[in-house]
Amino acid sequence: MSKSETVEYDQASADVREVYDDIMATRNTDEVTVYWRTIARHPPTLRRTWETFKAVMGEGELDALTKEMIYLAVSVTNRCNYCTEAHTRAATRLGMSEAMFGELLAVVSLANGANQLAIGYQIESSRC
Amino acid sequence: MSKSETVEYDQASADVREVYDDIMATRNTDEVTVYWRTIARHPPTLRRTWETFKAVMGEGELDALTKEMIYLAVSVTNRCNYCTEAHTRAATRLGMSEAMFGELLAVVSLANGANQLAIGYQIESSRC
Amino acid sequence: MSKSETVEYDQASADVREVYDDIMATRNTDEVTVYWRTIARHPPTLRRTWETFKAVMGEGELDALTKEMIYLAVSVTNRCNYCTEAHTRAATRLGMSEAMFGELLAVVSLANGANQLAIGYQIESSRC
Amino acid sequence: MSKSETVEYDQASADVREVYDDIMATRNTDEVTVYWRTIARHPPTLRRTWETFKAVMGEGELDALTKEMIYLAVSVTNRCNYCTEAHTRAATRLGMSEAMFGELLAVVSLANGANQLAIGYQIESSRC
Amino acid sequence: MSKSETVEYDQASADVREVYDDIMATRNTDEVTVYWRTIARHPPTLRRTWETFKAVMGEGELDALTKEMIYLAVSVTNRCNYCTEAHTRAATRLGMSEAMFGELLAVVSLANGANQLAIGYQIESSRC
Amino acid sequence: MSKSETVEYDQASADVREVYDDIMATRNTDEVTVYWRTIARHPPTLRRTWETFKAVMGEGELDALTKEMIYLAVSVTNRCNYCTEAHTRAATRLGMSEAMFGELLAVVSLANGANQLAIGYQIESSRC
Repeated sequence: MSKSETVEYDQASADVREVYDDIMATRNTDEVTVYWRTIARHPPTLRRTWETFKAVMGEGELDALTKEMIYLAVSVTNRCNYCTEAHTRAATRLGMSEAMFGELLAVVSLANGANQLAIGYQIESSRC
Repeated sequence: MSKSETVEYDQASADVREVYDDIMATRNTDEVTVYWRTIARHPPTLRRTWETFKAVMGEGELDALTKEMIYLAVSVTNRCNYCTEAHTRAATRLGMSEAMFGELLAVVSLANGANQLAIGYQIESSRC
Repeated sequence: MSKSETVEYDQASADVREVYDDIMATRNTDEVTVYWRTIARHPPTLRRTWETFKAVMGEGELDALTKEMIYLAVSVTNRCNYCTEAHTRAATRLGMSEAMFGELLAVVSLANGANQLAIGYQIESSRC
Repeated sequence: MSKSETVEYDQASADVREVYDDIMATRNTDEVTVYWRTIARHPPTLRRTWETFKAVMGEGELDALTKEMIYLAVSVTNRCNYCTEAHTRAATRLGMSEAMFGELLAVVSLANGANQLAIGYQIESSRC
Repeated sequence: MSKSETVEYDQASADVREVYDDIMATRNTDEVTVYWRTIARHPPTLRRTWETFKAVMGEGELDALTKEMIYLAVSVTNRCNYCTEAHTRAATRLGMSEAMFGELLAVVSLANGANQLAIGYQIESSRC
Repeated sequence: MSKSETVEYDQASADVREVYDDIMATRNTDEVTVYWRTIARHPPTLRRTWETFKAVMGEGELDALTKEMIYLAVSVTNRCNYCTEAHTRAATRLGMSEAMFGELLAVVSLANGANQLAIGYQIESSRC
């Protein structure tokens, strides 16, 4: 396994640079975050993951902030520290206030707790 | 353990009936779903869980539909069949279209997959 | 893969029968539940898993009921339907009342919900 | 999002202080742990979560130590580092010895492993 | 939400049919499984998910059977019933014997159990 | 609870030393990793866990590298930082290249994401 755990722009292959360029252009920034520079260790994963992000997270039937908050709710439920931190920042940039964040976590907390009661008492879904 | 797994209105204690009445009044319906009739097996849990639902899921900084969609995203991530079914119905009632549901699941799927890359490559959060 | 998904006593190898005999003797019953008859499809797994159950779940510093309730709490948190059902039965046999079960699920529900707040707000443990 | 990630007593609103005072009185301590000072960023969450803790975790059909050990088992299963650390401390204060802790983790480990066999071999629960 | 929960070939849009055709050609079958006919409810998800499957699951540095077994191990750990069933079938078609399946589940069970000890005893990774 | 969180060879009981000796002999090393020195706090857990590792992880129908990769896939899915780090090292020692690791994580990421679609759209397994 390579010593370096991230792939910096200067060392990157043309294929990886192309993705980095698209990330920076799409996000209007000159920084490629550590997430992308790490998964670039496997270039096909970098490209596929980025293409999926671009397609899924943009405006659609749901607006970008709602999508980021859903993403954040999943990251918290999955207990992924890096993802929680990164997507809290992303949602904040898109307009999530401290109070909105508080409500989001209250829903996440309620759902995680209340789900357990359905499971513990073995409440059946109608199709199972 | 009692044979009956749900507590029907007719058999319910005054304390439980009071919660059932509030559920029906708040939701403007004459049905108490199987979830509440089951957790009524432990009346303090019924009351606490209902009070928390009422306080958390109503309109606030986030609108009720956004909250339902966050709740649904958590339920799917937690693989709770009953919760997924019930909250898909609830979000649909509040206006979630088939296309919005498709986008929601696309975000949930992306987040669950992409979280794993952060963990597998051991990307550190800034504070850990 | 064999058509039959369980290994019945009559068809079992001597090695598997020995474990079945020990299960029935230890539990003072003449039934081997579907769990053991299924994992017997891989005899070393059957033996190892049974030996571990016998060693871990008996009386020790913690009494058998407390252990069953901890086991049940984990099964609910893991959303394993079969395990939840089987260990609710086991704990009930050891003396768990409906009210104790209600309190157990209330703790499980609280812990699952409250854990999320620690993660969502990124509260650090002292050693990380 | 506010710079400060915890709400200290001095800066807290009257509403938050009231909860802090109740925490300190109930626990007979003059410290409010970082958990509560963090979730105080959303005061309704602070109050609701504290009220639920007080109601659920006290003596009832199950004694307080058993409840703490169940809480700890859930926190470990959920891989919440902060929660594991905090509730190991809490259970230790209530009398959990090193040997009891060892047995608790042995049960948690067994249950997590054995649950997977039920799922992998697709053992059906009787109601599904 | 449409009544029908799957999109059958006859009712499918040209875009969806194109994916169905590619699935059948790639897998050398004339059946499109219920998984694909369901996620076709959101055509962009169908196309993206299929493209990713085709790219990720084929022969590479890891052979196709190893990939299927890794996929199955994740599905069991995630307690996804449908996925466990479908990928047990897929791995069996690629050559997984009953004994290999037994060993796979033994590893999954061991890892799930042993992971908990690392978490419960709060063993630190070197970078955190 | 003992201040020291690991049990060093010099302080260990004869029972624990016997396991340590077997670990070092089996792995042909003179180091006992922090995992084993920590779980030695509960000697029966140490012995049982080690015996299971020895029996499950060696060559069988599946080769040792395949088993390590399955173990790693579970550890990532479980978000266990220590386990992910330790088993990435172990698999690397057994021959996992950077490209194989990349493909492994791509499968783990795909499975985690695609599982959610089965759950979110409530696709039934044939037996439930």
